[in-house]
Amino acid sequence: MVSTIKNDRLLKALMRQPVDCTPVWLMRQAGRYLPEYRATRAQAGDFVTLCRTPELACEVTLQPLRRYDLDAAILFSDILTIPDAMGLGLSLDEGIGPRFERPVRDVAAIEALGIPDPELELGYVMEAVRLIRRELAGAVPLIGFCGSPWTLATYMVEGGGSREFRLAKKLMYDEPRAMHSLLDKLSRAATAYLNAQIAAGVDVVMVFDTWGGVLSTPDYHEFSLPYMRRIVEGLQREREGRRIPAILFTKGGGLWLESIAASGCDAVGIDWVCDLGSARERVGQRVALQGNLDPEMLYASPQRLRQGVADVLAAYGEGPGHVFNLGHGVTPQVDPEQVRLLVDAVHELSASCHRR
Amino acid sequence: MVSTIKNDRLLKALMRQPVDCTPVWLMRQAGRYLPEYRATRAQAGDFVTLCRTPELACEVTLQPLRRYDLDAAILFSDILTIPDAMGLGLSLDEGIGPRFERPVRDVAAIEALGIPDPELELGYVMEAVRLIRRELAGAVPLIGFCGSPWTLATYMVEGGGSREFRLAKKLMYDEPRAMHSLLDKLSRAATAYLNAQIAAGVDVVMVFDTWGGVLSTPDYHEFSLPYMRRIVEGLQREREGRRIPAILFTKGGGLWLESIAASGCDAVGIDWVCDLGSARERVGQRVALQGNLDPEMLYASPQRLRQGVADVLAAYGEGPGHVFNLGHGVTPQVDPEQVRLLVDAVHELSASCHRR
Repeated sequence: MVSTIKNDRLLKALMRQPVDCTPVWLMRQAGRYLPEYRATRAQAGDFVTLCRTPELACEVTLQPLRRYDLDAAILFSDILTIPDAMGLGLSLDEGIGPRFERPVRDVAAIEALGIPDPELELGYVMEAVRLIRRELAGAVPLIGFCGSPWTLATYMVEGGGSREFRLAKKLMYDEPRAMHSLLDKLSRAATAYLNAQIAAGVDVVMVFDTWGGVLSTPDYHEFSLPYMRRIVEGLQREREGRRIPAILFTKGGGLWLESIAASGCDAVGIDWVCDLGSARERVGQRVALQGNLDPEMLYASPQRLRQGVADVLAAYGEGPGHVFNLGHGVTPQVDPEQVRLLVDAVHELSASCHRR
Repeated sequence: MVSTIKNDRLLKALMRQPVDCTPVWLMRQAGRYLPEYRATRAQAGDFVTLCRTPELACEVTLQPLRRYDLDAAILFSDILTIPDAMGLGLSLDEGIGPRFERPVRDVAAIEALGIPDPELELGYVMEAVRLIRRELAGAVPLIGFCGSPWTLATYMVEGGGSREFRLAKKLMYDEPRAMHSLLDKLSRAATAYLNAQIAAGVDVVMVFDTWGGVLSTPDYHEFSLPYMRRIVEGLQREREGRRIPAILFTKGGGLWLESIAASGCDAVGIDWVCDLGSARERVGQRVALQGNLDPEMLYASPQRLRQGVADVLAAYGEGPGHVFNLGHGVTPQVDPEQVRLLVDAVHELSASCHRR
């Protein structure tokens, strides 16, 4: 196993240590906006096969790094691999979105769920991690990830994506013990899954709470955050003498940054709605921050995009602890040249934030 | 014109004056969850005709008041009447959502827009207000409303509803002066529209900023809030010696309550994500607060719904200045009996919050 990382800006920034310029990676940096991704995706036939074929998952993980001066790779996979491994039967089609053949809607179905053994039922993910790590050869850190228990539960109960989360919320409101039992299983599954990714070679882990922001404040603190905290507490935080930083990201969680920052994580992802400067004031010295350009800014003119990058850097201000990212993922119609402009602008414009 | 209002709980609460119990009304209290609404809607043929026929708009406005002990009526209409009157050609079909035949996408189209004369181009709304006021005969106050300039602009630029607001944001990012010109026209149109509603008889006005929450913090303060503030500043705030309170509601605006409360409005609408107790601490004595039960709570069991009502009342706490509402509108599949339970529970459970 490679034990040193040549470009360690991301790791340093996540530990709030000095860097020469702000590291940058993008949520969904490997994806449909890249023609080479679409070609590999076509080769795989469908999205689930792409995720399940380690060589192809490795290939698409590396594609954006061949084009851009990114400071990290992120494992190409999907948050729904865990429920799939629990036996729900995932299909994922463009236009329709994710679907489960066997949604989980009552106590009996929740009780029947097992905790997947990551090296067995999710072995294809670990194989992809090992392949990517070998291919990266220590050039940049590799980020592993999972979905938050609450976010996974919404898909499992709804049977797919949702706008109003009616079924998931009805279960939460009417049968809170059943929902807690589901979330408990998911947090145990996610902890084992991330620890297996760490053992296989990821250098950073991130938990995506895409749908925590649809909850009321008390419900977020009862049904989403505690289960992310439990994952963080159960992580192997060191490998080969190096700390494995953990990032938590709740989209729409701007009101709750203080409690997210107190969860034990090293860094908090910030969506584009929340001001990064205020976020920094609120979390103080506790955590690094990752974010937060509006993903729609990638459709603006090159000049405006560059100004948008400058504005995000200025909002964070001087000193360490910032990882540049979008406030949510890259969208499929983005011009790949705009991503290049963004990445280069972050490095160029941020140098002045890091002079000592 | 009727000059006294028998049930003035809403008006008192909006002015932060003592009341016997917390007033309650619901966003979309007149709507598809009511069988009598669906019958009137079928009689009209389509949604736009329903809005444009004063007798039918009056009828559906009054329907929920015949069933429930509500403390206010809200004019049945749509926020898109203004762009429709500007000539964009509105159609509104269930399943598809609102569509404009002639979206506004460039400087020339923005410059060509006129400011509608409310009594001429929107006379059907004023006629509905006069009819409703006559029918209400002072039983409860009547709330008038409009969409926020930013929210209206998103529909006008996109040509309908949107998830990512790509076209509206591209115009905002790349041609901010054109966007400001559009927002300026819309704020003038909305001010004239609300003032005409006030002259015709509404007792309270509310501005719905459904999509302000998709903006970054600086963009919200440049492109949404200032134009709502301008509307508030231009309102006729008194009629017949009585103040006409103004409520601003930005869905997803929980991070910005302090600046919304400083806009000159009397009350701020709070979505269900934001904690009402923290909101009250943050805005202090400046404004009343309206909200904020999760609309999905109406699908929970009656016991859980009642507890949800109690939790919202407890979050606000004792004393005046609270108007009970949902955090967003009633959804179409709600059981009308659940709305009755909610309304009655608010009155019953809130009495103890108002003992002096």
